[in-house]
Amino acid sequence: MRRWNGWGDDATSIDLSEAARAMLNTRLGPGLPAVDATRDAMLAQVPASRLPTHPLIQTDADTRFAMALGESFGDWIRKRFGALPPVPDGVTFPESSEQVRELIDLANANNWIVIPFAGGTSVAGHLDCPISQRPILSINLSRMNRLLHLDKASQLATFGAGTPGPQVEAQLRAHGYTLGHFPQSFEYSTVGGWVVTRSSGQQSLRYGRIEQLFAGGRLESPVGTLTIPTVPAASAGPDLRELVLGSEGRFGILTEATVRVSTLPEHESFHALFFPDWDAAEAAVRELVQRKLPLSLLRLSNGIETETNLTLAGHARLIGWLQRYLSWRGCGVGKCMLMLGVTADTHTARHALREARRLLATHGAVYIGRAMGNKWVANRFKGPYLRNTLWEQGYSADTIETAVDWPQVKHLMLAMEQAARDVFAPYGERVHAFTHLSHLYPQGSSIYSQFVWATAPGGFAPNFERWQRLKTAVAATVAAHGGTVSHQHGVGRDHAAHLADEKGPLGMATLAELCRHFDPKKIMNPGKLLQDGGPWAS
Amino acid sequence: MRRWNGWGDDATSIDLSEAARAMLNTRLGPGLPAVDATRDAMLAQVPASRLPTHPLIQTDADTRFAMALGESFGDWIRKRFGALPPVPDGVTFPESSEQVRELIDLANANNWIVIPFAGGTSVAGHLDCPISQRPILSINLSRMNRLLHLDKASQLATFGAGTPGPQVEAQLRAHGYTLGHFPQSFEYSTVGGWVVTRSSGQQSLRYGRIEQLFAGGRLESPVGTLTIPTVPAASAGPDLRELVLGSEGRFGILTEATVRVSTLPEHESFHALFFPDWDAAEAAVRELVQRKLPLSLLRLSNGIETETNLTLAGHARLIGWLQRYLSWRGCGVGKCMLMLGVTADTHTARHALREARRLLATHGAVYIGRAMGNKWVANRFKGPYLRNTLWEQGYSADTIETAVDWPQVKHLMLAMEQAARDVFAPYGERVHAFTHLSHLYPQGSSIYSQFVWATAPGGFAPNFERWQRLKTAVAATVAAHGGTVSHQHGVGRDHAAHLADEKGPLGMATLAELCRHFDPKKIMNPGKLLQDGGPWAS
Repeated sequence: MRRWNGWGDDATSIDLSEAARAMLNTRLGPGLPAVDATRDAMLAQVPASRLPTHPLIQTDADTRFAMALGESFGDWIRKRFGALPPVPDGVTFPESSEQVRELIDLANANNWIVIPFAGGTSVAGHLDCPISQRPILSINLSRMNRLLHLDKASQLATFGAGTPGPQVEAQLRAHGYTLGHFPQSFEYSTVGGWVVTRSSGQQSLRYGRIEQLFAGGRLESPVGTLTIPTVPAASAGPDLRELVLGSEGRFGILTEATVRVSTLPEHESFHALFFPDWDAAEAAVRELVQRKLPLSLLRLSNGIETETNLTLAGHARLIGWLQRYLSWRGCGVGKCMLMLGVTADTHTARHALREARRLLATHGAVYIGRAMGNKWVANRFKGPYLRNTLWEQGYSADTIETAVDWPQVKHLMLAMEQAARDVFAPYGERVHAFTHLSHLYPQGSSIYSQFVWATAPGGFAPNFERWQRLKTAVAATVAAHGGTVSHQHGVGRDHAAHLADEKGPLGMATLAELCRHFDPKKIMNPGKLLQDGGPWAS
Repeated sequence: MRRWNGWGDDATSIDLSEAARAMLNTRLGPGLPAVDATRDAMLAQVPASRLPTHPLIQTDADTRFAMALGESFGDWIRKRFGALPPVPDGVTFPESSEQVRELIDLANANNWIVIPFAGGTSVAGHLDCPISQRPILSINLSRMNRLLHLDKASQLATFGAGTPGPQVEAQLRAHGYTLGHFPQSFEYSTVGGWVVTRSSGQQSLRYGRIEQLFAGGRLESPVGTLTIPTVPAASAGPDLRELVLGSEGRFGILTEATVRVSTLPEHESFHALFFPDWDAAEAAVRELVQRKLPLSLLRLSNGIETETNLTLAGHARLIGWLQRYLSWRGCGVGKCMLMLGVTADTHTARHALREARRLLATHGAVYIGRAMGNKWVANRFKGPYLRNTLWEQGYSADTIETAVDWPQVKHLMLAMEQAARDVFAPYGERVHAFTHLSHLYPQGSSIYSQFVWATAPGGFAPNFERWQRLKTAVAATVAAHGGTVSHQHGVGRDHAAHLADEKGPLGMATLAELCRHFDPKKIMNPGKLLQDGGPWAS
C-alpha cells in the first residue's frame, strides 16, 4: 500500500549499510529521529467541507486529506510533523473528458477553486491549497487511466491523462510498444502530469522529453475545450501543444494525451565507466553527446556522489576490490562514475557502444562492464525510497535540479553545493551535497543536486525555515549562473518566485495574459507558475 | 543579380531538354508564353508615399516596390502581368536591435502598419500590404546579417535575424561549424524568417527543424522587448520560444536568434534507390524512419515525380540504360525513387548506410549508388529556377505542401493531385501533378506536391482565379484528411482562411489574444496568420 507520509509502497524499503551509516555520522553528525505525527491526528484537524452535496463530489476528511499534499520536502515535513495546510473541500473522480467538462463548468459557475490531481508526486508544490474564502475542489484523474486508442502505423497512443507510468507501459507492452518515459517518479506519476509539468524521463537521450513525445490531446478549460490534433510537424503558426506543456493546470485540465510510442527495443544495456576526475569526465561526455551517437542514457556522478553511491552499494569487499582496481587504473580520489545506456536494434546498439567506448577512452575512461548498470536498472525508481530510510535515521533529504549551457555546468554545480553548505553553517550544521548530470544535450546539461542534513529538533517550523533558506539560496545561485528554474520538476508554487528571472517581465505578462484568457475567473490552480492566489499556509 | 520577377540569380538558369519539352507538350498541350510587364511600367504605378520624411526611412518607388511582393504564385503573376498591389510607403534598413526598437516605437506612436522583410522568399503571402488608410512601413532586416557570438562549448551561434543561408554557413564554416538548415530557399531566406515561419531544412532528419535549432533570441514587440535566454531544456512553464516560432511578425520582430550548431560532419553522402511501386516504398521508408537510424535525409518521389525527374535529368542514353536495368530488377512503370542521405562521423555513416540498405532491400529496393545523389546535392537549391524556365515556355508552376500521420499519407497525396486535376478540368486544361515526401517522421510525413499547368491567356485575372481555385481545393482536401495547413512554408495570408480547421475556435481565439497582448494597436503584419487587417488587392 502506498505510504501516506513517505515515498512509495510500504512493501519496499532500503536499508542503510553500516558503512553508509558511518559515512553519515562522519559527515553530518548523529541523526536525531523525530517522532512522527499519526494520520488520525491529522484527519482530526481537517475542517468541515464548504462544498454543497453533489453526487460526483466526495467530502469525507480521509479522501480530502489524501489530495492535500504532494512530495516536496515542505509537504513531507507537514505530514511528518502533523502541520496540516488547507485541504480541498471536496474531491471528484471523473471518468471521462465530458465529466471533467461538467465539473469545470460547475466550479466556474460557482467560483470554486479547482486543483487538478493525478499521481500526487509533485515535488514543487503543485497541489498546495490557498487560504481562501472560496471552496476548493480537487479533480482527481486517477480513474482516467486507460489506453484509449493505438495507431500502430503512426506509433501514436492516446491515454487518459491519469494513467500512471506502470499502466502506460503495461498497456503498450501488450501490443509490442513502449513510451520510454521513465522519470524517477514513474511508479505513480501520470501521462497528464508529465505533460503539464514538462517532465523528462531517464532515457530522454533516446526517446526525448515529454515535449517530443506529446503529439496532441484535449484540454478542458473554463472557457471551452481545446482539441489539439496530431500532425507529425507543422509550420502552421505557434504550436498550441507548447501552451499545454508546462501549463501546470493554469489553463485547464488535460484529459487525454496522445503520445509518440516506439516498438520495444531489440537491445538494451547499461554500462559503467570511471574517469580520474570531473574535468576529464565532463569533457568526455560533452564531446560524446555532441557527436550525436544513438545512445539512450548518460548519467555522470561527480566525485562526492560517486563515493556516496559506492558506499551505499553495500558489498564492501567487492567494492573495495573495485576501488583498488580503479585506483590502479588512475581513478582514485575524486573519480567520477558514468552510467551509459544503449537502447536500439542489436547492430546499432553494438555500433554505438563501440564508438562511445572508443571516444571515452581517449579521455581516460575505465570501462568496468555491465554489473553496475544492471544494478542501476533494477533500482532505477528506488532513489526516493532512500528518503524514508534517512528520515528514520534522523536525516532530511531534498533535491534541487536545473539545466544550463556547458560553460556554466561545473561552476553552477559547485556553487549549488556550496550555497547549501553556506545555508547550514550558521545553524552549526553541515550538509552532504552531491550531484549528477542525468540529461545531457549538445548545448549543456541538467544538474541534479542532492542534499542531506540532520533533521532539526523542534518540529515543523525550524525544519521548514531551513528548507526555505536552502531553496532560496540555491535558486538564487541557479539564476545567477543562467540556469533554468527547473529542468524536470516544473515550477509549481515552490519556484514561482524565481520564474521572472528566466521569463523576463514581458514573458511573465504573457503568461498572466494567457491565464486570464483561459480562466477569466481565476479558478484554475492559483499560485502555481505565477505568484497569485494566496495567502498560503507558512 | 537577383531577378526582380522570377526566382534567383539571373546568372543561373535551367534548360529544358527536348524530352522534357515533349513530355510537357504531351501532358499539357503547347504552352503559350505570356508577354512580361516591365519593371519600369510597374514602378510608374507606385503611388506617392504617405510617410513623413525620416532619416532612417527611404521612400523612393524603387526601394518600396522591391519590398511589396514575395515568391508565392500570386506574387509571381502580379510581377509578370504588371498587376501592382499596395506597396509599403517606406522602407527602413535598421542595423541593430535598438534601431528596430526605435522604429517599432515610432510606428506604434503614429499608428503605422509594420511589415517585416528579410529574404523576401515567402511563398504564402507574408509580405502582402493591405489596402489601408494607415501608412505602411517595411522594416528590412538585411543589414542585420552577422554572426554576433559563437559559444563553441555549447555549440550556440547568435546571428542577426536578417542573415541569409549562405552567410550563416560561411560565417560558421570559418570556425568549423554548420547550422545544417537547408530549405530550398536557402540562397536568400534568413535565420529570422526561418524561425518566425517554422521552417524545415532538407536535412532535418539529422539537424532537426528550426524549432529544434532555435535556442533563444530577442523579439522587439510594440509593448516591449522579449528576451529569451538559452538553456538546453526546461520545465519552467510554457516555452516562450514556441510563441516566437511561427509568429510571422504578428507579435513583433525577431532581431537576434541564437541557434544550435554542429561541427562540420566527417562524412556526408547521398544515395539513390528505387522501389517497384509506391506501396513497397512507403512501407520501407516508414519502417526505416521508425527504426531511428542516424540518417540525414530521406526523400521519396512518387511514380509520376520519378518519371518526371528522370525525364528532366537529360543524358537520355544513360537514363535509358538505367531504366532498362531497373526494369530488369523489377522496377518498371510506377517505380519510385528514394534519395537517402547520411551525415555523421565516418563509422556511424557506414553503419547507418549498411543498416538502411539491409532494411530497404527487404522491401525490394534496388540500390544504384551515389551518382544521382551527387547530382541532387549539386542542384539542391535549383528547383525554384525551373519555374522561370517553365514560365518562359508558357507553363505555370506551384507547390502545395502539408504533413499528415502515416495512415493518411497515400490517400492525401493522391487526393491532392486529383483535386488539382478536378480544378483545371472545367477549364478544359490538364495539370501535371507529382509529389514527394521529403521530411519523414516516425509519426508520418510531409507531402510536397508540385503542379504544372498551361498559363492561361488573358493576363492576371484568369490566372489568379485558377490559382485561387487550386489552392482552395487542395487546402480543403488537406483539411479533410487531417493534414496540417503547412509543414514548412507557414500560414501567411494565403493559408490564413484554413488555419481554424487545425487550431479550432479556442485555439484561434488564443492566437488572437496573443496578438492583442503584444500589439494592442494592431500595427504588426496584419492579415497574416489571422484573417484580419484587410481589405486586400484581389
